[in-house]
Amino acid sequence: MKKAKKKINAAILIIGNEVLSGRTQDLNVSFISNWLNVDCGITVEEVRIIPDIEKKIIFNVLDLSKKFNYVFTTGGIGPTHDDITSSSVAKAFKIKYDFNKEAYEILEKYYNKKNFNISRKKMAKMPAGSSLIYNPSSAAPGFKINNVFCLPGVPSILKSMVGNLKAFLIKGLVTVSETFNLQTVESYVALDLEKLQNKFLKKVDIGSYPFFKKGRVGVAIVLRSQNKKELKSCGKKLIKIIKDKKIKSIKNS
Amino acid sequence: MKKAKKKINAAILIIGNEVLSGRTQDLNVSFISNWLNVDCGITVEEVRIIPDIEKKIIFNVLDLSKKFNYVFTTGGIGPTHDDITSSSVAKAFKIKYDFNKEAYEILEKYYNKKNFNISRKKMAKMPAGSSLIYNPSSAAPGFKINNVFCLPGVPSILKSMVGNLKAFLIKGLVTVSETFNLQTVESYVALDLEKLQNKFLKKVDIGSYPFFKKGRVGVAIVLRSQNKKELKSCGKKLIKIIKDKKIKSIKNS
Repeated sequence: MKKAKKKINAAILIIGNEVLSGRTQDLNVSFISNWLNVDCGITVEEVRIIPDIEKKIIFNVLDLSKKFNYVFTTGGIGPTHDDITSSSVAKAFKIKYDFNKEAYEILEKYYNKKNFNISRKKMAKMPAGSSLIYNPSSAAPGFKINNVFCLPGVPSILKSMVGNLKAFLIKGLVTVSETFNLQTVESYVALDLEKLQNKFLKKVDIGSYPFFKKGRVGVAIVLRSQNKKELKSCGKKLIKIIKDKKIKSIKNS
Repeated sequence: MKKAKKKINAAILIIGNEVLSGRTQDLNVSFISNWLNVDCGITVEEVRIIPDIEKKIIFNVLDLSKKFNYVFTTGGIGPTHDDITSSSVAKAFKIKYDFNKEAYEILEKYYNKKNFNISRKKMAKMPAGSSLIYNPSSAAPGFKINNVFCLPGVPSILKSMVGNLKAFLIKGLVTVSETFNLQTVESYVALDLEKLQNKFLKKVDIGSYPFFKKGRVGVAIVLRSQNKKELKSCGKKLIKIIKDKKIKSIKNS
């Protein structure tokens, strides 16, 4: 994986009526976002969930591919009529939508010639000139065209494929984080956090998230930075605030 | 709740670095989307997840509020420095950001005067002229301004509040659905589904979703429509296909 000493950003485009309708709980955003940051130093800065409608896919693929270094789409690359991601991405970039020879051969081998029906063949069609993203789970590959990476929607299959994305990505600065789970309420620490944030403006991002679990109320303070030294320095100052205000920590069980 | 015999659509705008970074698994999209459809006949047609950055909130609030009947935001209305939804929405609509008298009184009563500190007071600030969305869990209200509804990010609090949205919403056509869980693979039914979809174009939306759970492989065929009669008619035709092709059903356990 090539490295760049700069911030590299990305967007995720979830394509699927089943996620929009609430029928299916999306699990891909948190997985992809975590993986991109930790393994690739790539920060996801926007996510969109849109229906299986061609003109919406075209608009959003073009819009996001202009605004971000990389775009990762999930869903809509299967064999059925509602799988229209590949053809829509081809239209978005005004590229021919056609059989990819290598994908065709992979699928033909996987299914055997006699079971390689027209619906399965559809999964070998993609924008001309795409690079394949191999799929160790169920053969049907994803693809990369320009700065857009098209992945399947089924989380287990997607997870098995992301390692194969690395060949295409440039590694940016990894965001490191530190979390403090505190037995307090947000309003007790809000002013101190604001002062601390102003001190570390644009160096450390300080988030405050109340939680309610197992009958306990608390606040998770999350420090995030692309600079370990700044993160450590900010963490030290936060620990001083916690001590001075006599706030107890909550150990994660 | 007033009713309209037409389609009413909405967008959800999730505001929060913690969801984008993958630290927090979003649960609000599926809940709001399901609730809006079943209880209010409102269809969510787009979701965006964006960071706690003022200019991004302003852009997306304005963009979505123009494109959809309603916009529901979650997150960023608490007491800390990273809670900037209320002030950003005020800026988006060029409305004064100020204390809401009723919200102030609710919070002052909830916390008692002596504990009503500056951070808690911040939760009473919102765009001037907003209507309150009452919060039976933790007092701090959400608000409605124009066609935008601002809700908290914590799922349990959000869930306790949605009932109070109904006073502001016009009920549209409810989408009804029927799901067929089949012991088959997508490519075995893809052509039949495509023909069926073409027969019911714009009347019934047919989705096909492979699943892999408890060691079983299957396909969920989901029919969705705002017309019960069309849904039933489409369902009958699908049952005939299933019988003709000798596909077994999988009962949900």
